[in-house]
Amino acid sequence: MNRLTQWICREGRVISPEFLRVDGFLNHQIAPAFVEEAGKQLANRFCKADVSCVLTAEAAGNVIAYEVARRLQAHALYAKKGRTATMANPLVRTVRSPTKGTETELAVSGDYLKSGERVLIVDDFLYRGLTSTALAEMVRESGAELVGFGFVIEKRFAKGREVLGKFGVSVTSLASVVRMDPNSGRIDFEE
Amino acid sequence: MNRLTQWICREGRVISPEFLRVDGFLNHQIAPAFVEEAGKQLANRFCKADVSCVLTAEAAGNVIAYEVARRLQAHALYAKKGRTATMANPLVRTVRSPTKGTETELAVSGDYLKSGERVLIVDDFLYRGLTSTALAEMVRESGAELVGFGFVIEKRFAKGREVLGKFGVSVTSLASVVRMDPNSGRIDFEE
Repeated sequence: MNRLTQWICREGRVISPEFLRVDGFLNHQIAPAFVEEAGKQLANRFCKADVSCVLTAEAAGNVIAYEVARRLQAHALYAKKGRTATMANPLVRTVRSPTKGTETELAVSGDYLKSGERVLIVDDFLYRGLTSTALAEMVRESGAELVGFGFVIEKRFAKGREVLGKFGVSVTSLASVVRMDPNSGRIDFEE
Repeated sequence: MNRLTQWICREGRVISPEFLRVDGFLNHQIAPAFVEEAGKQLANRFCKADVSCVLTAEAAGNVIAYEVARRLQAHALYAKKGRTATMANPLVRTVRSPTKGTETELAVSGDYLKSGERVLIVDDFLYRGLTSTALAEMVRESGAELVGFGFVIEKRFAKGREVLGKFGVSVTSLASVVRMDPNSGRIDFEE
């Protein structure tokens, strides 16, 4: 068990078989040591991919994407929730949240996501892959090249990895959860 | 003129006398070199304040707060937009946006913002000080100690600094804009 999975075991809280609360170190209160380690590990996995843009959906993925971009000497790019009136050349997708049942519009400016960029999509969680699919479709629409997906925590049981398979690029995660038990609080990771 | 003000002059775009667009390096596309430099300078100014928590409002301030926290060996804490059903012991304030006219609810968990913490409030912009006032009120309500405010860009003409004066702590900014001209694109900084 590596340092990140130890941290998730120790401080993550299993709320239901599908919901893991990480707001003590990753989503609300942020532990920089966790984010630095995760950013370093993800950057290492894509260090030969010549990434120029690390794309995520605001706001949960922001600091992870920033840390990966910093280490790869790339830009980070945050898909905004809701199209802003002043955004130039917006690319837009609507994403339905499987947990909340709400719909969110994600928008990225075509001034930044564009042909010639080599794009790595990064997020804190891979669940069913809906947000990442929307981001990957925007990458394709822009003419940029998608080089891979990187996640801190993958909920392996939700099969998001299979959903992203259609894009034909590398999907990597640092901690892959196969089972969570809200009664015991136990989290089982893929070996 | 230091490295940050040079960057803001070169890549910021003056949309109106009050609106400076920085979405090429700070708000939408992120230039890690800019954020690192800003984080380093803000951390240096508060390195003797024994900060344990760097508080900001999601999402614009996230990476700046993260960089400052990382360098001060503190936690970052992001006030969430909208109270989430699962947040424990929420502290809540409503903030009215002077530019958009909308109201946003900001929420922080009292599990993290609490007595014993020494809190630095950080954000990308200081405009009229409404968001920072809401955050500072939550700090006071929680029993934590407020040690200061740090901003990357201050719109000096909007007098947010005077609004924050009532908290009786240090207010610092890295680039203080006294005037912007949308016709020439010129930005004047305080010396």
